[in-house]
Amino acid sequence: MSLITLTTDFGDRDWFVGVMKGVILKINPLAQIVDISHEIPAGDIRAGAFALASAYSYFPRGTIHLAIVDPGVGGDRTAIAVQTRMHNFVGPDNGLVSWAAAKEKIKAIHQLSNPEYFLQPVSQTFHGRDVFAPIAAHLSRGIPVKSLGRSLKDFVRIKWPAPLRGHNRIQGEVVYVDRFGNAITNIEQTLLANLTSKKVKVIVKKRYVFPLASHYEAVPRGQPVAVPGSSGFLEIALNCGSAADYFGLKNGEAVVLRVGG
Amino acid sequence: MSLITLTTDFGDRDWFVGVMKGVILKINPLAQIVDISHEIPAGDIRAGAFALASAYSYFPRGTIHLAIVDPGVGGDRTAIAVQTRMHNFVGPDNGLVSWAAAKEKIKAIHQLSNPEYFLQPVSQTFHGRDVFAPIAAHLSRGIPVKSLGRSLKDFVRIKWPAPLRGHNRIQGEVVYVDRFGNAITNIEQTLLANLTSKKVKVIVKKRYVFPLASHYEAVPRGQPVAVPGSSGFLEIALNCGSAADYFGLKNGEAVVLRVGG
Amino acid sequence: MSLITLTTDFGDRDWFVGVMKGVILKINPLAQIVDISHEIPAGDIRAGAFALASAYSYFPRGTIHLAIVDPGVGGDRTAIAVQTRMHNFVGPDNGLVSWAAAKEKIKAIHQLSNPEYFLQPVSQTFHGRDVFAPIAAHLSRGIPVKSLGRSLKDFVRIKWPAPLRGHNRIQGEVVYVDRFGNAITNIEQTLLANLTSKKVKVIVKKRYVFPLASHYEAVPRGQPVAVPGSSGFLEIALNCGSAADYFGLKNGEAVVLRVGG
Repeated sequence: MSLITLTTDFGDRDWFVGVMKGVILKINPLAQIVDISHEIPAGDIRAGAFALASAYSYFPRGTIHLAIVDPGVGGDRTAIAVQTRMHNFVGPDNGLVSWAAAKEKIKAIHQLSNPEYFLQPVSQTFHGRDVFAPIAAHLSRGIPVKSLGRSLKDFVRIKWPAPLRGHNRIQGEVVYVDRFGNAITNIEQTLLANLTSKKVKVIVKKRYVFPLASHYEAVPRGQPVAVPGSSGFLEIALNCGSAADYFGLKNGEAVVLRVGG
Repeated sequence: MSLITLTTDFGDRDWFVGVMKGVILKINPLAQIVDISHEIPAGDIRAGAFALASAYSYFPRGTIHLAIVDPGVGGDRTAIAVQTRMHNFVGPDNGLVSWAAAKEKIKAIHQLSNPEYFLQPVSQTFHGRDVFAPIAAHLSRGIPVKSLGRSLKDFVRIKWPAPLRGHNRIQGEVVYVDRFGNAITNIEQTLLANLTSKKVKVIVKKRYVFPLASHYEAVPRGQPVAVPGSSGFLEIALNCGSAADYFGLKNGEAVVLRVGG
Repeated sequence: MSLITLTTDFGDRDWFVGVMKGVILKINPLAQIVDISHEIPAGDIRAGAFALASAYSYFPRGTIHLAIVDPGVGGDRTAIAVQTRMHNFVGPDNGLVSWAAAKEKIKAIHQLSNPEYFLQPVSQTFHGRDVFAPIAAHLSRGIPVKSLGRSLKDFVRIKWPAPLRGHNRIQGEVVYVDRFGNAITNIEQTLLANLTSKKVKVIVKKRYVFPLASHYEAVPRGQPVAVPGSSGFLEIALNCGSAADYFGLKNGEAVVLRVGG
């Protein structure tokens, strides 16, 4: 249990992430630290929750996933550690870890309130350094999660936007735009399982219509296509281009699948 | 043989690189992973090939260099592992590893077709996670390269643009613009060896003329200069500035050296 | 003494940082390397000095901090290693390490002039690869700092801009703008210790007036506030936004604290 992942909106420009790693290695010189992302849009809890939920399960059992997108730092939000059968999550209790943790069998939820594991003095603006990094490091050394603070019954959960399913129609929305301009939707691949043999049209902005296919190159260069993405959701893509730029897609934009006719 | 380098166009914004590292560490917890770059321009195979060729030789013998710039993912391009006397290269067979591998003594080339070493189910859009990362991890644990798939006679090679050499003239081109705005050309330093003592003029865009020197500060601040760059090629630079911005230089832009008179 | 941190303006786009890590691991396969930042603005020695001074002390005793912001590379600036009681600093002697090193008890300062520890041939433009990385690696293997070159009496120091203190007034300036748009000032938190109970107004651009508080959420969303920042200095922030964008703040911009009245 000495692998720690980091998912934050701290960016790569400043020294914030480096300092957290210094704090971790000072407490546990054997900790192995892997960055998931530090470029979560500043304060965007949903984007962080989606990134963490897409990534965590590929790490070894026992990994400690430290996630910090924390616009409420220094205010009255609490901080938590969630222990599940396979993974551990540490972060502010603002929903950030909720999409990932909800997929796992939860064993314990504890508040981070024991100051013994903080870096003193605790600043009001950088709990990543003063609270979260030291706690992840102590966990990686094997301290029991219950020593961190009192047990909680649940954590703050943010609602997953379920797609609307009609007779010949599924209406979803864009939930994440990746670096290539692929727009990941909330339409799960499993919903598509029965559709692939049928005639499916994908529609965005009510007027752009394009096909569903298995990979980008199923359409000519520069053409749009919807593909089952690597995160398990339908993605709107452009072969060799950015679908987000092409269509002007942002989070929340409706994506409609029309089956048949 | 437990060091793995990563060169991709996956960017640092999303969770793609982190997930690849999780996959690698799940298979080989002792693997050491070093990022060469994840900011290769999206889909730019030549830029990725140049970065890899400039970097790989500085790593220890036996390093596994995993490179992924893969606009054809999910299509019918094949994937390869190239074993050389000193290094190993893994990536799509689209020319990406060809400039680096061509500098080495090649011992074996194998297709990546044995699904035993893939992460199942294999997605159509993220072979970095499902094919390449697990194969690099298995190689780092010592499986023989021949177990990955059938032997190939060669890999796809992209052509290196050789400079044109005239009587008192060398015409090259920009092949890479770095973060400082230095424009790296295809004119090898060895071609300059006999020139340094002579009067050499460097010309870009047919009208801007400036000197060849050994370092940036040989010219006043804000002035252009051509220097033997750290990759072994002539670079167009600006002392304390960006030559690419100053001249509007892009890949393919002609760079002329005129000797004497 | 096998932990090495890196603080540079080399960026994450090119292969420069990866190559330095390759060079280090070739010399010391057991070195542990942590990035502090590679996105120091190109050539901005003061920003690099501030980042290093803010970060270094969170790392374990004996850490080797390699810092490179080096517009004079290849010219006649010298390069140094500074050994202090707790930390080691390696970099060009241009003031980059001076704010950090000045906080520590200095034991030895040596020029980096012994070519035995360079990677040959030494380029004129990439001492990060050819001089600094190998020296950091050799130091991490335990060679004595005195073997690097002759002893120096001092290093180049850049002046810290001390705030002006009047009767009911402190005038400071912005010294660093972070990724969130928080503007870090040169006004030390210790100067604020006596002020918190009093009525303090913060003024920027002579006309914007806002309060001093302990955390961002002390003001409504989108409102400006000055808080004691995590680096030990007063920061101008916006609750859930960028103070730098809101006010147009840059380094050097005056920040005035008016007490009482």
